[in-house]
Amino acid sequence: MAGKKRGLFVGRFQPIHYGHIKVIKKILEEDEEIVIVVGSAQSSHSLDNPFTVGERIVMLRSVLKEERIDLAKCYIVPIPDAEMHAVWVAKLIAYCPSFDTVYTNEPLTRRLFEEMGFSLGTIPLFHRDLYDATEIRRRMVEDEDWRSLVPPCIVDLVEAFDGVGRLKALSKSDKRGGSNA
Amino acid sequence: MAGKKRGLFVGRFQPIHYGHIKVIKKILEEDEEIVIVVGSAQSSHSLDNPFTVGERIVMLRSVLKEERIDLAKCYIVPIPDAEMHAVWVAKLIAYCPSFDTVYTNEPLTRRLFEEMGFSLGTIPLFHRDLYDATEIRRRMVEDEDWRSLVPPCIVDLVEAFDGVGRLKALSKSDKRGGSNA
Amino acid sequence: MAGKKRGLFVGRFQPIHYGHIKVIKKILEEDEEIVIVVGSAQSSHSLDNPFTVGERIVMLRSVLKEERIDLAKCYIVPIPDAEMHAVWVAKLIAYCPSFDTVYTNEPLTRRLFEEMGFSLGTIPLFHRDLYDATEIRRRMVEDEDWRSLVPPCIVDLVEAFDGVGRLKALSKSDKRGGSNA
Amino acid sequence: MAGKKRGLFVGRFQPIHYGHIKVIKKILEEDEEIVIVVGSAQSSHSLDNPFTVGERIVMLRSVLKEERIDLAKCYIVPIPDAEMHAVWVAKLIAYCPSFDTVYTNEPLTRRLFEEMGFSLGTIPLFHRDLYDATEIRRRMVEDEDWRSLVPPCIVDLVEAFDGVGRLKALSKSDKRGGSNA
Amino acid sequence: MAGKKRGLFVGRFQPIHYGHIKVIKKILEEDEEIVIVVGSAQSSHSLDNPFTVGERIVMLRSVLKEERIDLAKCYIVPIPDAEMHAVWVAKLIAYCPSFDTVYTNEPLTRRLFEEMGFSLGTIPLFHRDLYDATEIRRRMVEDEDWRSLVPPCIVDLVEAFDGVGRLKALSKSDKRGGSNA
Amino acid sequence: MAGKKRGLFVGRFQPIHYGHIKVIKKILEEDEEIVIVVGSAQSSHSLDNPFTVGERIVMLRSVLKEERIDLAKCYIVPIPDAEMHAVWVAKLIAYCPSFDTVYTNEPLTRRLFEEMGFSLGTIPLFHRDLYDATEIRRRMVEDEDWRSLVPPCIVDLVEAFDGVGRLKALSKSDKRGGSNA
Repeated sequence: MAGKKRGLFVGRFQPIHYGHIKVIKKILEEDEEIVIVVGSAQSSHSLDNPFTVGERIVMLRSVLKEERIDLAKCYIVPIPDAEMHAVWVAKLIAYCPSFDTVYTNEPLTRRLFEEMGFSLGTIPLFHRDLYDATEIRRRMVEDEDWRSLVPPCIVDLVEAFDGVGRLKALSKSDKRGGSNA
Repeated sequence: MAGKKRGLFVGRFQPIHYGHIKVIKKILEEDEEIVIVVGSAQSSHSLDNPFTVGERIVMLRSVLKEERIDLAKCYIVPIPDAEMHAVWVAKLIAYCPSFDTVYTNEPLTRRLFEEMGFSLGTIPLFHRDLYDATEIRRRMVEDEDWRSLVPPCIVDLVEAFDGVGRLKALSKSDKRGGSNA
Repeated sequence: MAGKKRGLFVGRFQPIHYGHIKVIKKILEEDEEIVIVVGSAQSSHSLDNPFTVGERIVMLRSVLKEERIDLAKCYIVPIPDAEMHAVWVAKLIAYCPSFDTVYTNEPLTRRLFEEMGFSLGTIPLFHRDLYDATEIRRRMVEDEDWRSLVPPCIVDLVEAFDGVGRLKALSKSDKRGGSNA
Repeated sequence: MAGKKRGLFVGRFQPIHYGHIKVIKKILEEDEEIVIVVGSAQSSHSLDNPFTVGERIVMLRSVLKEERIDLAKCYIVPIPDAEMHAVWVAKLIAYCPSFDTVYTNEPLTRRLFEEMGFSLGTIPLFHRDLYDATEIRRRMVEDEDWRSLVPPCIVDLVEAFDGVGRLKALSKSDKRGGSNA
Repeated sequence: MAGKKRGLFVGRFQPIHYGHIKVIKKILEEDEEIVIVVGSAQSSHSLDNPFTVGERIVMLRSVLKEERIDLAKCYIVPIPDAEMHAVWVAKLIAYCPSFDTVYTNEPLTRRLFEEMGFSLGTIPLFHRDLYDATEIRRRMVEDEDWRSLVPPCIVDLVEAFDGVGRLKALSKSDKRGGSNA
Repeated sequence: MAGKKRGLFVGRFQPIHYGHIKVIKKILEEDEEIVIVVGSAQSSHSLDNPFTVGERIVMLRSVLKEERIDLAKCYIVPIPDAEMHAVWVAKLIAYCPSFDTVYTNEPLTRRLFEEMGFSLGTIPLFHRDLYDATEIRRRMVEDEDWRSLVPPCIVDLVEAFDGVGRLKALSKSDKRGGSNA
């Protein structure tokens, strides 16, 4: 609540990759603590959001340990989407420890925080064509190499969750919207 | 609750067609009772889901009678979508009589039940290019023959509900999402 | 869609009792078909709504068979509550086959249909002090006689669902609202 | 957007009474424009919220005309409740023209705006025991005098909406929660 | 409630343009009062719905004043979308003063009111290729002329809200669905 | 995912007290890791749930540090309530790392996990009359001693959040339901 400067990092981590890790380390160079928001927590089992929020939390924790990042400096907070973009930042504030700087490259997220008057940090670009979760999910479906884009512990966890099998199954569905049946 | 083996059949029935009827009969050869889930119950008045759930229930009941299927062996249960794919099966379980085997060819639905440990039955393929609700709705909009793909009572009911008129009206809307206005 | 006169009966059936059965029989004397709405479908595991909607559907079907009521004349439609009382009737209309007369003694339900211009049928009072689901649930918690107030098949099903055990467990909770944790 | 100082007045107006009118006039002495928020817009047909939001808007407009208050200075904005108290103010901000001072005596509402850093105006107390919507609704149910507590046009509108009949009907319901059936 | 004939005009006003104003004036020639529904009230910060409902209400009020339209004849009512198309009209009825004729060219909206038995007025076509909010938003993103398609006060308000900056920021997002993160 | 035995502890932590800490330590004697679920995450600013979920997470983390509990063994997962009790456990499973044993004394929570077939651990009773969050909140409102029932860091945080001021403000509200206005 006091003293400690905290950076906020918003992502969906579908799945976490080397690009995310770079950012987390960069933020911990700037700030004393980091709040990692696992966005769209309600989503799973879709091509854009294959992993459940529980699986994503396990992956994040696993990477933090593997990278020897001090867990005492990290908060991991899953947040479900809000019905209104215009209230999502207020919802995030209610779910998180207070924070000082927001790190994100997603244009909508960036804009929402900007309009609320938050200070926005810059994230170094790091081979965004490669280290991109959409590209990684595409490779999983197409049986191309995705393992080199994520840390070893994530390869193991994706396999434990049968993430590739799940994505391939979902890719055969012609559902466009969010209907379940 | 006991004894009777029940099969679960999940569909949206927009509208019901000869392919669905084949499956229902096939399940009743394997199991003593069938639970027919009318999925996305909240949806209507869209190109993918033109009919209300009430209209779909009337169509199902009408077909069961026309085909002389014993109503005492059939449960028809409308279920609205869940906010989270990951909880939809739990919601369905709360809405339905207990069941033993799940019949569906929809990849997402199949995967969700598989991950919950359910036994999945196989559905015989039956001219899926023809007996497909998406194709039937396309034909309704394009004024092509759709009547030969559904039972006679469904032709009558679609006309009573002015289903073709509704679909054609909706096809002129440029709404993409689910907004009402 | 046409011809057949249908009566609508709205209840929560927590659990179904002899009073409900009287009403169902009465309606089938007046109308050719009955639509039995299982209201508050989303509710279960509370003192007012101990049974899931699936359990309530099984109980209803079981009673209809035991009473030799023609299933071809009965629709059972579970409907979750609406966010707004003022739109609940519209939601019910979307979920149900069309109907002509509404049967209910619940003052709010009655008022909502009245304001929408529906015709309301009268339900004969039948020992409402005894044949009352609130009283039956109270007796279940207090270990008093409830078995005489429901048909034999319901006694069996309540026991199969461990309904009394569930109610007693819930009665020890001091939760007032709808929170889960 | 600029220049004009606006006061925000939050109420549910179930129904509007002389106390509300005093406050509206007081705010228009302090500020150039007033935003009148009709809260709990989704609620109606309950003992605490008998009138629909449409009926409440009609009542407000009618009073403003009767009191010769300049409509060009008044915004009337209905706002449904938010799932989270902590985001309700953000939702209200998204629904309303920008405002400078908040007027409310409701402790929760007051606290929510205070924590968001808003300036809170003071509302003169004006016979709160009498000019109180809860008291007015109680008198409607008990057939005591309520007409003297609201302006003449509200007496007419409550009668046009059959508000007393609706409240009396609802008072016979034993529903505690928000269930519809 | 009585006497006054009211027309209902449904739009999203993202943003309001000369086409809308024509319709409002046309309706006020036919009817004594107009109810202007600001639809999809919950939406903002997306390419289809950039402006918050509060911003849209301010724009509408500003145009009505600029055009010297009598505010005493106009109700502006923001309405959030409903979960079910089939209940949206019932929700709108609960939010609005009663009305007699519905004016809209949107095929889905038109159909929903038609099925509820409402009388539908005709809206004169007025250069729909130009006076179209989708076209205006496209021009804002592409830095083409949009100012000539909206009244002067709207140019000012869009600039005060930084509407073009917001739209351009959102156009860089690759979010398809409604997720916030 | 494998090997490590995890215990699940469900609470609302409004606020965390010595009783909770006892349980956390007890679970970490039995299991290698603990998943601490912060339930009713959406709730705050009410007499039963005064603190936001973000404040509760900060309090939990602070206590874990003060008590020198290894953070690498603890997951803190906020979970909003589900619309249906019957799907809440499925929602929790989607939000959490997998777990083996569930620890809770709340009768409803206990029953929901039991019906899903989970193994339930026993929690030692520890002066439940004193170490009870309801009692602590009551003392806060009544200006009685509450500081002795929570760890020193919680006293500091409650003061930093002005928790007592908030509770006292809320205690003056006569709102019963969840309405915001």
